[in-house]
Amino acid sequence: MKKEISSAVIKRLPRYYRYLGELLEEGVERISSGELSEKMGVTASQIRQDLNNFGGFGQQGYGYNVNYLYKEMSKILGIDNNHNIIIVGAGNLGQAIANYSNFAKRGFIINAIFDNNPDIVGKEVGDMKIMDTNELADYVMNNHVDIAALAIPKVESTVIAQELVSLGVKAFWNFSHIDLNLPEDVVVENVHLSESLMRLSYNLTNKEKTFL
Amino acid sequence: MKKEISSAVIKRLPRYYRYLGELLEEGVERISSGELSEKMGVTASQIRQDLNNFGGFGQQGYGYNVNYLYKEMSKILGIDNNHNIIIVGAGNLGQAIANYSNFAKRGFIINAIFDNNPDIVGKEVGDMKIMDTNELADYVMNNHVDIAALAIPKVESTVIAQELVSLGVKAFWNFSHIDLNLPEDVVVENVHLSESLMRLSYNLTNKEKTFL
Repeated sequence: MKKEISSAVIKRLPRYYRYLGELLEEGVERISSGELSEKMGVTASQIRQDLNNFGGFGQQGYGYNVNYLYKEMSKILGIDNNHNIIIVGAGNLGQAIANYSNFAKRGFIINAIFDNNPDIVGKEVGDMKIMDTNELADYVMNNHVDIAALAIPKVESTVIAQELVSLGVKAFWNFSHIDLNLPEDVVVENVHLSESLMRLSYNLTNKEKTFL
Repeated sequence: MKKEISSAVIKRLPRYYRYLGELLEEGVERISSGELSEKMGVTASQIRQDLNNFGGFGQQGYGYNVNYLYKEMSKILGIDNNHNIIIVGAGNLGQAIANYSNFAKRGFIINAIFDNNPDIVGKEVGDMKIMDTNELADYVMNNHVDIAALAIPKVESTVIAQELVSLGVKAFWNFSHIDLNLPEDVVVENVHLSESLMRLSYNLTNKEKTFL
């Protein structure tokens, strides 16, 4: 029986991966939980607890082998395999995502981008030609798609997401400002930029009250 | 003494605001916590608990007055006042943020965008001309800046953030793939797109294991 990992832990995993990658680049071969703790600004006990969810990886008196932990973390995150991504919506945000070269380094391969605006269909973004959204179903039936990124207005995203689910897409990276209500076996990761900005506003407003 | 609000609650606040806005658009004047709960997919008790952090707003047997709660929520979030934003970095992502018209509706006013690439300085993004990053300090000294959005490579963002802090900027919307270590009275909201994608990968990988 697989242990249920809390979403707080899951949220922290990519940050471990990022720090381990930086350590590798700096040529660090091993690190104690104490040193990693100082670098990341979390307690050593938190790090040990988080990693213990997946089996530990540390050795008393030795610390963590950076390269080994980095590789294990990539397996845990599922980024030891490539993921094929399509983007629906080639507005500013869709194009920004398409042009983000960092994703490919982590095995996130963007294969196609779609839009329903005839003025931009056929134009190039990165090394892709923007395809017409009416070719989307055909494309998904004939190509392996792991993840669909939705960078379209919220009125369209519900319909498109449901269509993609019916075609077998199991993961959505949702930039539309709406909660997609999709079947239980479909995963959704939301990036709601307006909400992020509102949280910043909340924290700014309340920090000001504290520091006045 | 102000009560400390947990980050989990803060994370949910913009979502309440979004749903209340949608209800208002649909002409709904009041709603019970039960109905709101069903709409949002959280328990009614969670809603009551969350809102009780700020004084409640509900009335037994009446429910919530949508318009009143929407306005109170905007005060809580600090978006009843405008915020002046600058963007550092006019690459794809910086330009996407600059062109996002939804932010202005919530009082987030983007006033200037900077880049250090001479090929794009002077070009227009939305109704702004991209300014040279070497004009940044001057600009911040002569204009009121509430929030700086950082859409630049991580090597630059640490230096730029520290410079902006020394000029009095108190809030950062950080898209750079690095943790900014800034003084305690400065607030940072991170949008790490690669990490979001890794969380999606984690959930996809582990969901697949569950549903096999």
